[in-house]
Amino acid sequence: MAAPVNRLREIWAAGRPAANAWLSLPGLLNAEVVVKGGWDSVTVDLQHGMAEPVEMLRMLAPIHAAGAVPMVRVPWNDPAAVMRALDAGALGVICPMIETGEEAAAFVANCLYPPKGKRSWGPLRANLMWGPGYSDAANDIVVPWAMVETSKAMANLDAILATPGLGGIYIGPSDLSISHGFKPGLDRQEPEMLERIETILATATAKGLPVGIQCATPDYARGMAERGMRLLTIGNDAGFLQAGATAAVQAFRT
Amino acid sequence: MAAPVNRLREIWAAGRPAANAWLSLPGLLNAEVVVKGGWDSVTVDLQHGMAEPVEMLRMLAPIHAAGAVPMVRVPWNDPAAVMRALDAGALGVICPMIETGEEAAAFVANCLYPPKGKRSWGPLRANLMWGPGYSDAANDIVVPWAMVETSKAMANLDAILATPGLGGIYIGPSDLSISHGFKPGLDRQEPEMLERIETILATATAKGLPVGIQCATPDYARGMAERGMRLLTIGNDAGFLQAGATAAVQAFRT
Amino acid sequence: MAAPVNRLREIWAAGRPAANAWLSLPGLLNAEVVVKGGWDSVTVDLQHGMAEPVEMLRMLAPIHAAGAVPMVRVPWNDPAAVMRALDAGALGVICPMIETGEEAAAFVANCLYPPKGKRSWGPLRANLMWGPGYSDAANDIVVPWAMVETSKAMANLDAILATPGLGGIYIGPSDLSISHGFKPGLDRQEPEMLERIETILATATAKGLPVGIQCATPDYARGMAERGMRLLTIGNDAGFLQAGATAAVQAFRT
Amino acid sequence: MAAPVNRLREIWAAGRPAANAWLSLPGLLNAEVVVKGGWDSVTVDLQHGMAEPVEMLRMLAPIHAAGAVPMVRVPWNDPAAVMRALDAGALGVICPMIETGEEAAAFVANCLYPPKGKRSWGPLRANLMWGPGYSDAANDIVVPWAMVETSKAMANLDAILATPGLGGIYIGPSDLSISHGFKPGLDRQEPEMLERIETILATATAKGLPVGIQCATPDYARGMAERGMRLLTIGNDAGFLQAGATAAVQAFRT
Amino acid sequence: MAAPVNRLREIWAAGRPAANAWLSLPGLLNAEVVVKGGWDSVTVDLQHGMAEPVEMLRMLAPIHAAGAVPMVRVPWNDPAAVMRALDAGALGVICPMIETGEEAAAFVANCLYPPKGKRSWGPLRANLMWGPGYSDAANDIVVPWAMVETSKAMANLDAILATPGLGGIYIGPSDLSISHGFKPGLDRQEPEMLERIETILATATAKGLPVGIQCATPDYARGMAERGMRLLTIGNDAGFLQAGATAAVQAFRT
Amino acid sequence: MAAPVNRLREIWAAGRPAANAWLSLPGLLNAEVVVKGGWDSVTVDLQHGMAEPVEMLRMLAPIHAAGAVPMVRVPWNDPAAVMRALDAGALGVICPMIETGEEAAAFVANCLYPPKGKRSWGPLRANLMWGPGYSDAANDIVVPWAMVETSKAMANLDAILATPGLGGIYIGPSDLSISHGFKPGLDRQEPEMLERIETILATATAKGLPVGIQCATPDYARGMAERGMRLLTIGNDAGFLQAGATAAVQAFRT
Repeated sequence: MAAPVNRLREIWAAGRPAANAWLSLPGLLNAEVVVKGGWDSVTVDLQHGMAEPVEMLRMLAPIHAAGAVPMVRVPWNDPAAVMRALDAGALGVICPMIETGEEAAAFVANCLYPPKGKRSWGPLRANLMWGPGYSDAANDIVVPWAMVETSKAMANLDAILATPGLGGIYIGPSDLSISHGFKPGLDRQEPEMLERIETILATATAKGLPVGIQCATPDYARGMAERGMRLLTIGNDAGFLQAGATAAVQAFRT
Repeated sequence: MAAPVNRLREIWAAGRPAANAWLSLPGLLNAEVVVKGGWDSVTVDLQHGMAEPVEMLRMLAPIHAAGAVPMVRVPWNDPAAVMRALDAGALGVICPMIETGEEAAAFVANCLYPPKGKRSWGPLRANLMWGPGYSDAANDIVVPWAMVETSKAMANLDAILATPGLGGIYIGPSDLSISHGFKPGLDRQEPEMLERIETILATATAKGLPVGIQCATPDYARGMAERGMRLLTIGNDAGFLQAGATAAVQAFRT
Repeated sequence: MAAPVNRLREIWAAGRPAANAWLSLPGLLNAEVVVKGGWDSVTVDLQHGMAEPVEMLRMLAPIHAAGAVPMVRVPWNDPAAVMRALDAGALGVICPMIETGEEAAAFVANCLYPPKGKRSWGPLRANLMWGPGYSDAANDIVVPWAMVETSKAMANLDAILATPGLGGIYIGPSDLSISHGFKPGLDRQEPEMLERIETILATATAKGLPVGIQCATPDYARGMAERGMRLLTIGNDAGFLQAGATAAVQAFRT
Repeated sequence: MAAPVNRLREIWAAGRPAANAWLSLPGLLNAEVVVKGGWDSVTVDLQHGMAEPVEMLRMLAPIHAAGAVPMVRVPWNDPAAVMRALDAGALGVICPMIETGEEAAAFVANCLYPPKGKRSWGPLRANLMWGPGYSDAANDIVVPWAMVETSKAMANLDAILATPGLGGIYIGPSDLSISHGFKPGLDRQEPEMLERIETILATATAKGLPVGIQCATPDYARGMAERGMRLLTIGNDAGFLQAGATAAVQAFRT
Repeated sequence: MAAPVNRLREIWAAGRPAANAWLSLPGLLNAEVVVKGGWDSVTVDLQHGMAEPVEMLRMLAPIHAAGAVPMVRVPWNDPAAVMRALDAGALGVICPMIETGEEAAAFVANCLYPPKGKRSWGPLRANLMWGPGYSDAANDIVVPWAMVETSKAMANLDAILATPGLGGIYIGPSDLSISHGFKPGLDRQEPEMLERIETILATATAKGLPVGIQCATPDYARGMAERGMRLLTIGNDAGFLQAGATAAVQAFRT
Repeated sequence: MAAPVNRLREIWAAGRPAANAWLSLPGLLNAEVVVKGGWDSVTVDLQHGMAEPVEMLRMLAPIHAAGAVPMVRVPWNDPAAVMRALDAGALGVICPMIETGEEAAAFVANCLYPPKGKRSWGPLRANLMWGPGYSDAANDIVVPWAMVETSKAMANLDAILATPGLGGIYIGPSDLSISHGFKPGLDRQEPEMLERIETILATATAKGLPVGIQCATPDYARGMAERGMRLLTIGNDAGFLQAGATAAVQAFRT
């Protein structure tokens, strides 16, 4: 059996941006339905999404089975949460609210086995999912994503980016906006916000790190991909469901 | 506290057709999201939907809280399943595969308390949901819907419609189609199928019974409403989710 | 290890009536709390109670661990439901709505292994709970309770009582009342209802069968025990919870 | 749709103390039963209560639907736990073991959006529950309650009370007692304990902050309300259930 | 995408017997662990196994993902249970206690779409699992297994085997034994039992139907395969777990 | 009712080493099966095991009911996780990755009530499980186990061992190995690793603290017991299940 790989890295090596689905609702079937869209990766959101770890376990399986890269946004920069997601088989962990180099280093350490980090050994489910080669390959195929989403994080951007082992930067536009005095929301068009996004993208790209961003619409995501973003989250399950359900009843009534 | 009512009957009395949402996926949050669309009723499908009774219990609560009429399609014409849905607070029960007058009578008996039927008493959750007036009102506000969806059922249509206490007829176009040699699918356009649908509608309407039908699109549902259908199911949660997720990734990639 | 016994039979042999707790709410902890009251048996109600089989499995364990006899009221006279409860470790099964000798015979057959009945073999959990002697003892320690709760059942009382292997009769006063034109409710005082209860009690007792009844209050239960009832259900978890919670807030406000 | 409000503040503005129910047992139905008592608020206890976040999600819905203010006691002063409860729709968060001004400030920051705090944006469920006005109103309707329950906390009471944005003080009598060398327990009568409670109440009230306390009995709660406490927890679900179940079987046996 | 197939039929076509794993314990992870052994098919037992349908849904996914044929033993010959298992993605359904040709016909009808049977259309999860070709292929790839496990069934063996559409016969040695006056248990060696097993095998094989049997040990299973059995269940998860756990502690202590 | 005790301490007082089972898979039934092996204690692993706290609650009950000492490995040195396990009834808590005396002190403080520690009072489930004497006995019967499993921990071994109230040292051979440049794995035979294990054992034993270790095989465990280890974990449920399932299918095929 070949050593496991992280397909996102193959996609990027081929020069393509990756389309990432976002799961905010608990549910094995929800994951099974969404992943059929043909996404490159699917992220189970344990921070603002309503799934809990007990459901994350169930939801990662069909993502993996469908050939998409299973990822998890953990609720916080917490060793238990990070290692849990990895043990369950996630190949990417998105960590919210990284604001300093120290926080980035602590996060990355929790993602990687010694000597690169401090991850504790015991990947029962990851071994079942990725095969016996998982243990040796883990440090190469796990991608730790630090979210940059506050003014403090931007001030410490260089320190964050200097963290050895960091796998990528993920931009949270809503928190980044409210941290700078704007209303929350995605697909920002304000020049100041676009400039901040561009700064993060350019600085990280210069360090060789892929950058991802949460988008509401395919158009905005495509624009961001054209600027060089490598991981584009487009909408989420709750939004798809609500939009479809609302449109159906409204179209019926008019 | 006023006696509980079934709002579908108020809607029909006002001359309006009712828009019914269809829940095929397990999940409390799914129900909470879908019901926000403003549906008149929401049906948890325990037959071909993937929710089980333990989740039905959770999903009926937000439907009720949002002011929509909670309904359940039971997996089969089975007293335990029918009484369970009612005890959990459903005001409508859709029963698949009713093919004879005897089956219709057995189904209706399970929906109504004596002397009209044989429903066993013990509406713990329904009492919590609908208040202390539930027990006295139950036989008036519970609507038993018999599905007519086979050629045998059509042959016995008069006997089915003659069942005292029957609340309505619900048409399942996929099963009705395969029972007549067509492929499965909703929104039938074949003249033979339209004629069958029209027969059911006209016959039931003549008896004063509302008729409902499972539709894929708002256009078809509106057309059916214009013909006189009173309960129009439009799409379902799995379809909304899959369509939205697929459209997003495809729009991004093109 | 001694062969397992059904402690209810020991209690009756000692001339004592048994106090049976009734669980209507799902929840492992609910069961753990209630059983501490010192009940002789505890019944998980899968008919009008809101627990499902997946929770029944969890709830039977602490009942057994606390030394009470675990029992289940199944939702209907259905082989799958009856055998499920027994496989999960219940020593008593209460079956609702037994109305004829044939129905009683079918129910009892589902409770007993051949040659006495048709129960299918595979008591994985019952073996874990009751030990390796379970298989040989099962037919002796499992008590099938037929509910007599309709006028039709009363008309067929002799046939029901003649069923070989029947373990007891359980009276459901609410259904028995609505079947005879009264409002539902427990602790009946109407002479006609008391006469019916007395008839069941006397007839079954004459056949050597214990009789049980659902009661709302300890006083009524004690009166019934004095008349010769052997299994007295007193209140239920939902009632205890609601009464306590309502009394607390009302006492605070006055 | 009007902006959402926290009804507790309306109750206090009307000069009334609020009656708060306490849920220690997991269970959607438990919550549905208890809230019928007519409580002003209901708190799901994730610290010593046995519910987990996956059940908190289910339990908050019926509390909200019944018109009571949904609150959560988080297991610890942890950003993930606090933000989770708020995203799920809680309008009050009770945080145990706040012992210093710094801890209070960290807790409050996790409850409030920038610029007042550091809460991360993404209230999917809170939006569904409270409507589109939730985001703008959140900082005004969310009440962060710091528990004062150790001698160290009392020594730092002024610093804790000086925390901008703090919504109230909640007294945990058991921990406060064992921290001062007494046995655990509620409804303390020792002069030293009453004096400590009075000190907290007076100091916080002087700052304009409401004070709450965990009580075992309605009498004690009413006495505390008369002293000026604004949030009175009276008993809990486990206690109501155990008391009712024990009383029933004992009354039957005597 | 190629039309889905039932790999068991390919294995049999290649002249190989199939090794079938048996899951008696609820648990997604249990299924993920067991299927790694390299089984040809894995059966989730909903009759005597302790999993419920809500867990069956989760357990079928990893079986499918690992390339084994997902099968379900339903609790009884019940249309709802049979169609549920199929909608959830099972390609084989084992039905207990088939005793007559009529029962076999009813069972098979529930497995097949019209015109061959009466299965109701709506394979949401099966479509997700097996792809868009599922609907057309379903009647060809679904294998209905009738259990022959009583003396009555043996008396009606010819009628059962004459059922059009029946996919195979599955022997339950424990029930077959107790039905004939023996103790329950697998791997029977009594000449009378071996003769009965041989009769079923020979008669069904003559009709072109594969025969399966529940075995305790690999040796017995291999012997049965050599006699011509095509589906060999070998042990079960509960047995593997109990044997391993007991052996470990005993080896340590001696 | 006698005061509760921790049977492990009785076993050690009798000069016997204790056999500890390890549960990595979620599942009430798994726990019920494994505990039948006759283990002295059973540990639910919430760190690398895949059970979550909601399942821990269910799994501790049958461990207790079977007379084994229920223990939990928490995911991290976190007050919420530690107190949760104890409130749920665990008598032992194994905490991973203790590396300093400060960390050990924080961990122990979370296990013990004041004045010895800072555990918050509210043992609802522990009281149900261990009886009314639990509160007074808790500080005596709860055993906090610090895992020593890194080079940093070994450097701080004396400080860790000097922690008042610490109950034992538990060795994690995999993490200890990778921390020292070896591959992960149990049952280490390298002289350097054996020396480290011996150092921990000797130093802790000299302080009067029992030492435990995770083992793969009974032989290794027995050897470690002969060296003086007092808590021997032997294999785990996932391993027993996988070994049994794989052996069965392989034995059948050869």
